[in-house]
Amino acid sequence: MSVEDRILAGDRLALARLLTQIENEQPEGFEALSKLFLHTGRAHLLGITGPPGTGKSTLVNRLALALRSRTKEMVAIVAVDPSSPFTGGAILGDRIRMRDLSGDPGVFIRSMASRGALGGLARTTSAVVEALDAGGFGWILIETVGAGQAEVEIARTAHTTLVIEAPGLGDDVQAIKAGILEAADLLVVNKADLPGADKTVCALEASLELASGPHQASGHPGQLGQPDQGWQPPVLQTAALLGEGVDEVIDAILRHRAYLETTGGRTGRDRERLRAEVLALLGDGLLERFLGARKDVDLGLELEQVFARQVSPRQAVQSLLSRDR
Amino acid sequence: MSVEDRILAGDRLALARLLTQIENEQPEGFEALSKLFLHTGRAHLLGITGPPGTGKSTLVNRLALALRSRTKEMVAIVAVDPSSPFTGGAILGDRIRMRDLSGDPGVFIRSMASRGALGGLARTTSAVVEALDAGGFGWILIETVGAGQAEVEIARTAHTTLVIEAPGLGDDVQAIKAGILEAADLLVVNKADLPGADKTVCALEASLELASGPHQASGHPGQLGQPDQGWQPPVLQTAALLGEGVDEVIDAILRHRAYLETTGGRTGRDRERLRAEVLALLGDGLLERFLGARKDVDLGLELEQVFARQVSPRQAVQSLLSRDR
Repeated sequence: MSVEDRILAGDRLALARLLTQIENEQPEGFEALSKLFLHTGRAHLLGITGPPGTGKSTLVNRLALALRSRTKEMVAIVAVDPSSPFTGGAILGDRIRMRDLSGDPGVFIRSMASRGALGGLARTTSAVVEALDAGGFGWILIETVGAGQAEVEIARTAHTTLVIEAPGLGDDVQAIKAGILEAADLLVVNKADLPGADKTVCALEASLELASGPHQASGHPGQLGQPDQGWQPPVLQTAALLGEGVDEVIDAILRHRAYLETTGGRTGRDRERLRAEVLALLGDGLLERFLGARKDVDLGLELEQVFARQVSPRQAVQSLLSRDR
Repeated sequence: MSVEDRILAGDRLALARLLTQIENEQPEGFEALSKLFLHTGRAHLLGITGPPGTGKSTLVNRLALALRSRTKEMVAIVAVDPSSPFTGGAILGDRIRMRDLSGDPGVFIRSMASRGALGGLARTTSAVVEALDAGGFGWILIETVGAGQAEVEIARTAHTTLVIEAPGLGDDVQAIKAGILEAADLLVVNKADLPGADKTVCALEASLELASGPHQASGHPGQLGQPDQGWQPPVLQTAALLGEGVDEVIDAILRHRAYLETTGGRTGRDRERLRAEVLALLGDGLLERFLGARKDVDLGLELEQVFARQVSPRQAVQSLLSRDR
């Protein structure tokens, strides 16, 4: 039985091995993935992001269990973790979380440590999500730690993007909120049992109102219909540690999934995501081929001139490209 | 007088205009920048990052004023802000901060909102930093809001990377810390007047000790000397609102600058940064040329096959590349 057939048949060990191959960028992993890709497109991708200290992981665990029990579909969590391979944060995280969710083979958790260049993580995440999709998971929760540019970009390639806030995170919260509002389909104020939760909810609702002016239609793919027919991101409250408010979040997620399906927004987001993936891979491939063909010699010479401030980076690139015509 | 000459002569208005052209990706901006590049390489780049809620902006303002008064060199702040152009967070931020620092033409602040694709922000930031370097600023503080992958990458291209933490930010802080430890030359626990500061300092010091094992030498360019001669990132405490501890941070920054100059680490980091910039621009250029030459026709066809799950993204790219030989 081939690796692909084993994964399609639900073999968890084969799946875990494939994910490792993908993370290590092994060619056999990508070959298997290409065959599996034909079986993707069924999972609903749920991106979850927000600043540290909001209790994201706890809420994600709760959501996974609730989705599993309410929809009976299999649930995978992909935790994109900025921890380095040196310190082993990702592995530790996996173990701690496995304890909560173990015992149910319909729940699968994978932590991914970020390594390599900027953008590489987004590409690997796409590949991992595709493998899980082919593996039969109906829900794939993509949790990004932090609320930086890369994390928001990864989360917003999902079908449904959930942004988590918490009360009293300090003055920077305002800035973070502004940056991710356009990406959010659902806003959740977690730790709602803490003082200040109402204030955070009000601030988010006010920001949403501000953002839902004439500009908003251009903000997010899949919302390009008439503004009054668009999706209004709800602001919900949870206390994930106590399990409070989780059902309401699931309701909203299911509503958003139904909304995307009836409006065609799901197809739009799928195309957007796949287009971005193809362009990123194409850029990688072109660069690799260019550098490989030249055996790095020309590049080294150009770089030395840049280091010596004789030639600017853009001039160096123009010169490299002009010699390649 | 050309734009370049005016900027080299210290004309702030010409500089501000150039930065806007660079942010808008106007060709005349990049042309001027290419000429100015020959006059770069003098500034010390100080990257500052950390999660929201740590009082980063306040500390950055304090550091800018202190560096200005102690070294007499001109100081620029580049605040890389995830706020969207819709909500205008970046502009508002500029105005608020300008009030603190105005009155001294030797201090210049520029906020950059992130727009466009992942990685685009890093490239624009490089260009803005080069323009400021040519403009005669001895210190360029690159402040990234958030502690995501992109932010850490941007901050670590600096000569000196300062990571800010604060007491009691919740359980996610552990994960963030692990991810940025290798990038940090200096760790600062701000809001040290709050309870729990000592605990945060201890946790950081313990993590640093853990990370300074045999692996650490490969973690960061510029630290590739013998391990016992390497730089030991100090953990400092500040209360930026009260102005406490700022002088000690400046001492450490100056020590690190001297350390880099005596060990040759400065050159190493410069080369690393410029190499990454050239490769990113080369990737962009190759992709642009490829798509331009084909007028997007082949790509559209390949994309349709990907959307229909007939061909995987990697197969589509291989097919596009093979027809381009």
